[in-house]
Amino acid sequence: MRIDLGERSYDIVIGTGLIHQASSYAGLPAARQAWVVTNTTVGPLYAAGVQAALRAHYAQVEVLELPDGEAYKNADTLNLIFDALLQRAADRKTVLFALGGGVVGDMTGFAAACFMRGVPFVQLPTTLLAQVDSSVGGKTAINHPLGKNMIGAFYQPQRVLCDLDTLRTLPPRELAAGLAEVIKYGPIADMAFLDWIEAHMADLVARDAAARAYAVQRSCEIKAYVVGQDERESGLRAILNFGHTFGHAIEAGMGYGQWLHGEAVGCGLVMAAELSLRLGLIDAAFAQRIRRMVAAAGLPTVGPILPGADNAESYMALMRVDKKAEGGEIRFVVIDTPGRAAVRPAPDALVREVIDACCLRE
Amino acid sequence: MRIDLGERSYDIVIGTGLIHQASSYAGLPAARQAWVVTNTTVGPLYAAGVQAALRAHYAQVEVLELPDGEAYKNADTLNLIFDALLQRAADRKTVLFALGGGVVGDMTGFAAACFMRGVPFVQLPTTLLAQVDSSVGGKTAINHPLGKNMIGAFYQPQRVLCDLDTLRTLPPRELAAGLAEVIKYGPIADMAFLDWIEAHMADLVARDAAARAYAVQRSCEIKAYVVGQDERESGLRAILNFGHTFGHAIEAGMGYGQWLHGEAVGCGLVMAAELSLRLGLIDAAFAQRIRRMVAAAGLPTVGPILPGADNAESYMALMRVDKKAEGGEIRFVVIDTPGRAAVRPAPDALVREVIDACCLRE
Repeated sequence: MRIDLGERSYDIVIGTGLIHQASSYAGLPAARQAWVVTNTTVGPLYAAGVQAALRAHYAQVEVLELPDGEAYKNADTLNLIFDALLQRAADRKTVLFALGGGVVGDMTGFAAACFMRGVPFVQLPTTLLAQVDSSVGGKTAINHPLGKNMIGAFYQPQRVLCDLDTLRTLPPRELAAGLAEVIKYGPIADMAFLDWIEAHMADLVARDAAARAYAVQRSCEIKAYVVGQDERESGLRAILNFGHTFGHAIEAGMGYGQWLHGEAVGCGLVMAAELSLRLGLIDAAFAQRIRRMVAAAGLPTVGPILPGADNAESYMALMRVDKKAEGGEIRFVVIDTPGRAAVRPAPDALVREVIDACCLRE
Repeated sequence: MRIDLGERSYDIVIGTGLIHQASSYAGLPAARQAWVVTNTTVGPLYAAGVQAALRAHYAQVEVLELPDGEAYKNADTLNLIFDALLQRAADRKTVLFALGGGVVGDMTGFAAACFMRGVPFVQLPTTLLAQVDSSVGGKTAINHPLGKNMIGAFYQPQRVLCDLDTLRTLPPRELAAGLAEVIKYGPIADMAFLDWIEAHMADLVARDAAARAYAVQRSCEIKAYVVGQDERESGLRAILNFGHTFGHAIEAGMGYGQWLHGEAVGCGLVMAAELSLRLGLIDAAFAQRIRRMVAAAGLPTVGPILPGADNAESYMALMRVDKKAEGGEIRFVVIDTPGRAAVRPAPDALVREVIDACCLRE
């Protein structure tokens, strides 16, 4: 599958046994040195195999293990990458391979965007969430204490290798987190896919290989289409943020790493559907359908109470710095009609009602 | 004057009284909020006037003063910009105005490149060095302890306003530093300009307004041409780094801020000319001519002894991480023939001789 972005176009390869085969890396930019950037969880499982395969193409292949988790997706960890590269005399041709989930991919991609003003990188996503969403499309970033993914770049990888084998070792919580991003594609872009997900949710949760392969493929197709239309999110691309405005507030408000990104997005889908319902865009049955699918994926459907005196205000303060906000006015991705999304502001009072209705009360 | 980069094209405006006139800012991207990012030296002189002029176009105009100097061109200071922007609810349309010298311009530009994955910015250079070189062309970066400008982005401003009035308050040391970048353009691109600089060096040092205006204009013309040919430095643009390979080693080796960037480049021009001489590319008279011009500008022509047991090795270790290096092999900008530069490696032994010949011995 190809992402069509002119001179920044690249392939997404989906299959099994990919990351340990030397042939998977043929045709990438030549260099003396390559780096496998991974984390302390994924590294021990796959880094040696990737390193061995890369040796067919690069004289020197280094491995860097970062601490694991969203809590480390920050400037300090980013600096660990720069320190390592400079200490081992990486140069402007050095290629970085991001081996891990969304955190590793986002950070390695941003490091590649900035190191010596840009070196090539390749995504080797090992989580469902990274394979269906974050590794595709060139959004890279780190978090800031005041907001998720606030510091980053649009910077496209040279290739994305979605090796389905790596999903076998995925913990159940990570699998569920990935399903949130799969579910997302239905209401915003493809009702037939939503039907399919609904019909195959039990298979997906039970790790059925064929179901998983199709979910990854169709998700990547939709993402590739949207990103090809609007690489830098001047319009259409924002619909991919369905559920993310509420979700990012949960992540930042609870402290990065407390809720997985996909868990926060799952709950955010329920809240964004509730908002769409209260705006009169969808009916209660459709909002209920989204809630049931999120629950069936094993994801939370009730929002947490965030620190602060006024829970709704805590959510709204965090959402006002969302990247879609303009002049302090929050803009939400809502379901315009099932299968199509829109971005729009909403009255504060209505958003408060949504938060009150969706959040856990002791 | 226009920098021609397709959809990233922009104007360089050179004149007097520019930054305090509201009309200078007409036609820039609309936004609710604008930020003047400056430093504690330049801010008290010009920030209020710029802020007043910007109020004609932006409802909210904030000022942020950073600490002054190359020693602060790092990740910590960059974070001060992000903190301020997020605390005041800046959004994806917020425009940043870099008011100051090369350090402010490089950091503000890089902050603009990364904040919410990219917001517009404008360069308001107030030093000769920034007006003739660093504000033009979209190179932005911060330093890393192991190397100058190692972390950054190619990110073009929306406009560059070179207000010649701001040069009146420039300290002599800063003026000399700027002249290093002016001198640079002669041997790499324009011998007629070199003749002119030589003939007018006394006027430039004496702050003659007409001479200064022409120096800024011709420097920007050459830079605009080179950048228009090769925005991302895949080839030609590297010639603008004449003197910078040695110069960056001096800056990093002595500790950022000990030598001004322009001082290190001035000395680096002498060393790069000496290397060109020893490679048999130019004659001793031309190398001597460059040395005399650097001296006449009030710049150092003798390199410092860097910390470490072996001075030449200290220089070479720092130059091996230069962005032009490949696989640990240093690549130098040399004068191929007067008026034309080339990028090439040089034998280590010869580079050692150059360093030994050019550095101060107790």
